[in-house]
Amino acid sequence: MLRLNRTSVTAWIAVVAVIAGLSYVLIGAAVRPASAQPNAPAARVEFTADGKLKQPVGYRKWVYIGTPLTPNDMNDGEASFPEFHSVYMDPESFAHYEKTGKFRDGTVLVKELSSVGSKEAPSGKGYFQGEFTGLETAIKDSKRFKDEPGYWAYFSFGHKYPLKAEVAKGAVASCNQCHADNAGKTDWVFSQYYPVLRAAAPKSK
Amino acid sequence: MLRLNRTSVTAWIAVVAVIAGLSYVLIGAAVRPASAQPNAPAARVEFTADGKLKQPVGYRKWVYIGTPLTPNDMNDGEASFPEFHSVYMDPESFAHYEKTGKFRDGTVLVKELSSVGSKEAPSGKGYFQGEFTGLETAIKDSKRFKDEPGYWAYFSFGHKYPLKAEVAKGAVASCNQCHADNAGKTDWVFSQYYPVLRAAAPKSK
Repeated sequence: MLRLNRTSVTAWIAVVAVIAGLSYVLIGAAVRPASAQPNAPAARVEFTADGKLKQPVGYRKWVYIGTPLTPNDMNDGEASFPEFHSVYMDPESFAHYEKTGKFRDGTVLVKELSSVGSKEAPSGKGYFQGEFTGLETAIKDSKRFKDEPGYWAYFSFGHKYPLKAEVAKGAVASCNQCHADNAGKTDWVFSQYYPVLRAAAPKSK
Repeated sequence: MLRLNRTSVTAWIAVVAVIAGLSYVLIGAAVRPASAQPNAPAARVEFTADGKLKQPVGYRKWVYIGTPLTPNDMNDGEASFPEFHSVYMDPESFAHYEKTGKFRDGTVLVKELSSVGSKEAPSGKGYFQGEFTGLETAIKDSKRFKDEPGYWAYFSFGHKYPLKAEVAKGAVASCNQCHADNAGKTDWVFSQYYPVLRAAAPKSK
């Protein structure tokens, strides 16, 4: 026989409860998928204290949605967006888009620009990517950009390297107005040029 | 005072041990990153019993590496690979490439083809993606394809929809020879047309 006073038993129960509780919390946090986390608007990018956007990082592992091409040689030698535009969406917002067909509050789109490096290869004549030349970002945020049309703000880190480390949002007239005028029906995004987006929307499944 | 016999205490200790052990196992399994799993060659694709490759799935969330374009209108009306070629690499092999600059055994590259949908947009004149038209895959596997040059095998699911559900590897002459002849120095991959690959290789950092 072993004698334990009530305090000892209470202590044992407390230990069990703490371990069980801790397990629940830790396991819960570990297995909870990222998409089930609270939707932190634009969680994948950072802003400075005065509201400038820091250059996004890690976006080459986000979800690729398409590559329009506006070569300089088809735009009087200097395209507005030279030249390949590889566009990525943050994975959490893409997951939301797959379910709803909507760009959620906090959606981040990154457009990485690269030059035309070659116009002929063993696969044929055409346009082949050269070097990275620029980086732009569009962010939908109904709080931070509550006065922007559609809540979208646009940022350009430049069209030649080295890129800027942080930038203020562009004036409405410089980007937003064109998106509003030409892509207003698809929430300011030119979805018609992105088959990945069209295929991912629920209505197409 | 409360009386407990030795068995009761042992039972309590056992409960605590089981909960703690279970926590360790569950948390360990949950937080272990995918990249720490054993590298199963070509784990992201499946083959039939007779060695045909099943159509890859989920690749639009792999790592995008670039988009060459060979438009029909620049290739006598019918390009060998019509027209946009968006190329993806499986994430585990990309992580290996970032560390080593090498295509590991088991690397899977998926090339998704899409048509030219428009040649003018608000962003300028150029080429804009239309509809998905085709799907091809290249796989490096020193066991399964030990007789192929460079251990790479190439598969085409077709250049128009509906795509084939499963396909045998192409003859060496149809793909591999051209890759060997023109990209032999970069392990059969045309890295020169993919700035994402060049930027990801360790030597460029």
